[in-house]
Amino acid sequence: MKALVLEKAHELRLRELDIPLHVGPRDVKIRMHTVGVCGSDVHYYQHGGIGPYVVEEPMVLGHEASGIVAEVGSEVTHLKPGDRVCMEPGIPRMDSRATLEGIYNLDPAVRFWATPPIHGCLTPFVVHPAAFTFRLPDNVSFGEGAIVEPLAIGLQAAKKAALKPGDVAVVIGAGTIGAMTALAALAGGAARVILADLVPEKLALFAGNPAVTTVDVRAGKLADTVKALTDGWGANVVFEASGSARAFDGIFDLLCPGGCLVMVGIPADKVAFDIVAIQAKEVRIESVFRYANIFPRALALIASGQVDVKPFISRTFAFEDGIKAFEEAAAGRATDVKIQIEFPEPAAA
Amino acid sequence: MKALVLEKAHELRLRELDIPLHVGPRDVKIRMHTVGVCGSDVHYYQHGGIGPYVVEEPMVLGHEASGIVAEVGSEVTHLKPGDRVCMEPGIPRMDSRATLEGIYNLDPAVRFWATPPIHGCLTPFVVHPAAFTFRLPDNVSFGEGAIVEPLAIGLQAAKKAALKPGDVAVVIGAGTIGAMTALAALAGGAARVILADLVPEKLALFAGNPAVTTVDVRAGKLADTVKALTDGWGANVVFEASGSARAFDGIFDLLCPGGCLVMVGIPADKVAFDIVAIQAKEVRIESVFRYANIFPRALALIASGQVDVKPFISRTFAFEDGIKAFEEAAAGRATDVKIQIEFPEPAAA
Amino acid sequence: MKALVLEKAHELRLRELDIPLHVGPRDVKIRMHTVGVCGSDVHYYQHGGIGPYVVEEPMVLGHEASGIVAEVGSEVTHLKPGDRVCMEPGIPRMDSRATLEGIYNLDPAVRFWATPPIHGCLTPFVVHPAAFTFRLPDNVSFGEGAIVEPLAIGLQAAKKAALKPGDVAVVIGAGTIGAMTALAALAGGAARVILADLVPEKLALFAGNPAVTTVDVRAGKLADTVKALTDGWGANVVFEASGSARAFDGIFDLLCPGGCLVMVGIPADKVAFDIVAIQAKEVRIESVFRYANIFPRALALIASGQVDVKPFISRTFAFEDGIKAFEEAAAGRATDVKIQIEFPEPAAA
Amino acid sequence: MKALVLEKAHELRLRELDIPLHVGPRDVKIRMHTVGVCGSDVHYYQHGGIGPYVVEEPMVLGHEASGIVAEVGSEVTHLKPGDRVCMEPGIPRMDSRATLEGIYNLDPAVRFWATPPIHGCLTPFVVHPAAFTFRLPDNVSFGEGAIVEPLAIGLQAAKKAALKPGDVAVVIGAGTIGAMTALAALAGGAARVILADLVPEKLALFAGNPAVTTVDVRAGKLADTVKALTDGWGANVVFEASGSARAFDGIFDLLCPGGCLVMVGIPADKVAFDIVAIQAKEVRIESVFRYANIFPRALALIASGQVDVKPFISRTFAFEDGIKAFEEAAAGRATDVKIQIEFPEPAAA
Repeated sequence: MKALVLEKAHELRLRELDIPLHVGPRDVKIRMHTVGVCGSDVHYYQHGGIGPYVVEEPMVLGHEASGIVAEVGSEVTHLKPGDRVCMEPGIPRMDSRATLEGIYNLDPAVRFWATPPIHGCLTPFVVHPAAFTFRLPDNVSFGEGAIVEPLAIGLQAAKKAALKPGDVAVVIGAGTIGAMTALAALAGGAARVILADLVPEKLALFAGNPAVTTVDVRAGKLADTVKALTDGWGANVVFEASGSARAFDGIFDLLCPGGCLVMVGIPADKVAFDIVAIQAKEVRIESVFRYANIFPRALALIASGQVDVKPFISRTFAFEDGIKAFEEAAAGRATDVKIQIEFPEPAAA
Repeated sequence: MKALVLEKAHELRLRELDIPLHVGPRDVKIRMHTVGVCGSDVHYYQHGGIGPYVVEEPMVLGHEASGIVAEVGSEVTHLKPGDRVCMEPGIPRMDSRATLEGIYNLDPAVRFWATPPIHGCLTPFVVHPAAFTFRLPDNVSFGEGAIVEPLAIGLQAAKKAALKPGDVAVVIGAGTIGAMTALAALAGGAARVILADLVPEKLALFAGNPAVTTVDVRAGKLADTVKALTDGWGANVVFEASGSARAFDGIFDLLCPGGCLVMVGIPADKVAFDIVAIQAKEVRIESVFRYANIFPRALALIASGQVDVKPFISRTFAFEDGIKAFEEAAAGRATDVKIQIEFPEPAAA
Repeated sequence: MKALVLEKAHELRLRELDIPLHVGPRDVKIRMHTVGVCGSDVHYYQHGGIGPYVVEEPMVLGHEASGIVAEVGSEVTHLKPGDRVCMEPGIPRMDSRATLEGIYNLDPAVRFWATPPIHGCLTPFVVHPAAFTFRLPDNVSFGEGAIVEPLAIGLQAAKKAALKPGDVAVVIGAGTIGAMTALAALAGGAARVILADLVPEKLALFAGNPAVTTVDVRAGKLADTVKALTDGWGANVVFEASGSARAFDGIFDLLCPGGCLVMVGIPADKVAFDIVAIQAKEVRIESVFRYANIFPRALALIASGQVDVKPFISRTFAFEDGIKAFEEAAAGRATDVKIQIEFPEPAAA
Repeated sequence: MKALVLEKAHELRLRELDIPLHVGPRDVKIRMHTVGVCGSDVHYYQHGGIGPYVVEEPMVLGHEASGIVAEVGSEVTHLKPGDRVCMEPGIPRMDSRATLEGIYNLDPAVRFWATPPIHGCLTPFVVHPAAFTFRLPDNVSFGEGAIVEPLAIGLQAAKKAALKPGDVAVVIGAGTIGAMTALAALAGGAARVILADLVPEKLALFAGNPAVTTVDVRAGKLADTVKALTDGWGANVVFEASGSARAFDGIFDLLCPGGCLVMVGIPADKVAFDIVAIQAKEVRIESVFRYANIFPRALALIASGQVDVKPFISRTFAFEDGIKAFEEAAAGRATDVKIQIEFPEPAAA
């Protein structure tokens, strides 16, 4: 079976690879349709690793996926061949303490697509547990299905914030994760999102949304906008989604008394926190590691129109052009939010 | 000063009444612009009381109000004459235990407009604490400002539900409170609202909203719709907003394991609960009594477009025709959601 | 293997029964030491069923258990033969939606010891998933280990209450579940428990605890005690643990504004609720169905001395006298809280 | 009236000072009985300021107080002359947004005893709002009443942690605030507190408590103890109560997945946070600024015996020896936790 394989840093090949496809009783086999290119995929491609996760053997990339059920295990009842689905890419140990407590994303034994040494899904067929495979509503496309994964991160952030209806939220960073977080915050209860970035093209994608106020931080001060839009009270929630250490400068000044900072972005280095400033407002700080129990929620929000992800699917490449897709993603154009890869239709499905 | 006075049951008069208008240091004086007619106003008009609250002296009606600041007390800093505002109608004792705990709506000493023996606001001027007077954003009309009060009840219900992003919610009852609750649930995190009523005209107001599924309970079973739309899992939250005891029949069957029932409607009689059915799903039940700390949230949601209340303002009468407004409201047309009363512009404002 | 078998209502036999003891890779095999007699066991004995659960085939009773690990599956790492353990009696489907959400107790597919048609554990050996088997701390006896199960119900109730430090709690009912709930409430944050029952002998077990105020409801009014002990504010939490419909009369009068009722007891019939009384205080109502993720917490509380269950283990019978243990439990002496059954030491362990 | 006045840094005088004692309708006048010496009092004495709060005019010290009601305002109903009371030292603006939301401690306009320029209470009489004056239960001494204030900080921390029954908690720092936090954590739901400090005398005060494991961090590694006592899972909550930046080294390693850090201590400098380590466990971080709505809870816990503060009242000085009390407190003996000052009995009370 052909797969998009990261041989080592900078070396990507579309080649045959032998991946076992045994379908257990609670598994499904899926013919892939669309796979999104994630920043982490690109980072592995460019650097051969992320922190402690180092690519030491050739590894298939890709973890944002949708497809069509090809076969179901003997005990699977909620899916059948032909179902259009998307897949949650991380599988915990099912009887771990974290899983039983409902925080399976925090199980140290999670096996996550395209996180070494686990293969990703940029290959025509995968086998996956039925419990982590979700049917797409009829009005949700494969492209939308494949962007559920990054949206799920935004929704996990919104869930952690415990937004109350009518909150004012700040989102710092308008890349894929920031954009998904902004959508999630609005769908999750915020009256308004104040979205900050350095790249006008990213902010422009929200131009038509009256509930989003964009701030080009090279042109104006975020703190001034927050103050003006909250009568000086401050934002209820700040989502840090840039991963930039500099975004933390004065970040607690943006919050109202009793406000909440959600750390979504992943800064490479340690960040100095002014604990007195945190305490003076009794700030709550939440943090996000992927997501748990979010995929059905993301699908429901897309299906009902409460979240519209379509403007954020920037370009689509054929599987045969997968390497080019990665090169383009690595180039980091201002107008690209999400690049996706589509598999060819089967000859006679 | 002229006022719309309920003399006793069935007897409403537009007449002069002497109401003191002393402006204390933390008060504002407001020239009224728009006042909505609430079901409770109509109930006092028709019955002369609601439960323990009996109209024993002539009482001005009205508690859903917007207007223009005419004068501010010496210590008021956040408002000035000319500001367009709406008012929260219940004033607690400011140093009570409930108030200090942030649940001032539950203070037994609350004084609430048009709840005997406290006068309401259907009169050209009122004096009100500045802390319970809120400036209208520029794009929020007086009519919208005056509907903030019932929307606040819906938002209190949504806040109590502690909705998570992507929840499926059921709202039983599509009267004013049910409609506001449906809007609040969607703005507060629900992916979809399943709205049930017996009156097609009420449901029709939601026809254009793809996130609302309406169920005419005379034509179909609510439980079947819920099951179909949740793959059999059940709704995360049910808002009971009809106040009908019959709405509770089988209500826990609508919920998913761990789901929540929010009791917004006010049934006249006791309702029999199947506690075993509640326990089998570990249902949480929340209840709503007016609102606390909600008005700024409601205004933010209207201003940003996350909530559109305009379709629910059905008809507007002049203050001079106030008695007719009450008669029409009492008639209970299927197409009326909210009837409002407007005061005349001052001769030389 | 000998087992205590309920043949049908009223007919209990200590007889040979063939129960498979296959140890899977994530299972352990346990030699039983102590098993408590639960009210539900007694109810099956006396009535042959509880609601929809009817004993149609001979069924081994017992689900409150401790023992010694005899054998471990190939993948089990946290237990070894010889470990003293107690067992959580309900096993969910591990990949169900409820389980993944951390509420595995609500999974409709749960298999629970001594709930038809699942055999209980009153038999010398059982095989159980390692994930639901917990090592006893050195200072926790087998008897204490076997009472963890009812304590877990009390702790689930305390967890649901979301007690804040210094809350005043009322517990209605001082039977096993009420007693365990009182202990759990105190360990879980309550400053004081006001414990109400009709049976002085039950209340007497708390005589030495300065944090417990007992109320014999035949001699005095619970509402008066609550009022006196809370300066008229009301209790923060009421735990209904009697299962008596009459306990609900005026129950909301006991609560403070914003208070919480936790329904632990299981009334046979529907109970009429005064919804207006609930709403006037914005009461939150929680309900309990067994427990999830509680056993390690119960063990930690017993080991540290924060909870002392020893006074509630009333009498212990040998396995050979198991039928007599049930007859005694069925007799319902006022001085009996928990009756336990002990297995003989093995000849040459 | 004589008062203990801080003239400027290092200069403390017991001298006459004219302090107005007007009793408003909702105020009480209190004859002081006992006042504790707080670390902040000592810091003002030694440094003349704390961060932005600088002593520019002579200021009376003291804010941990108990006394006897001498006079009540015309509208006060819950207190009467002769009542033994303790007082909450911070008074917010009663109609501020923060106050109405129940977080009055975060109101920027709070006036707090002995925080410049507000006088403290080391003076024979004070006037205070009745709403912030609390009657001592009969079995609570004046000394205990005066230690409610630091206990309230511990309880605010425990409340913020949202402890679940049976949690394992770590408390770093066993000074007054650490000790009170340890007591609060146990009373608030923790099964066990692991208490770490460098000073054996501080730890020794907990020697008799089986639920407290002390760790002398010069002799052993805290992380090892936590690991051993939690089977490697980690603590549910870590309370940082030392205010030392070094305490944050590796602090997130102490926590379990989904655990919570509560920042109680106040580090002078910024602290570098490893955000990736926080995210890997989705740690929640809470922070504490004084307390709100805690005093009645603290009194209830002391009265019921759930919290025993008596061992932490180390020494008591007469008001006439108040300066010596401060010198002793400033000396910082290892065996001193709380030093208190008592006023003389009135000649003919």
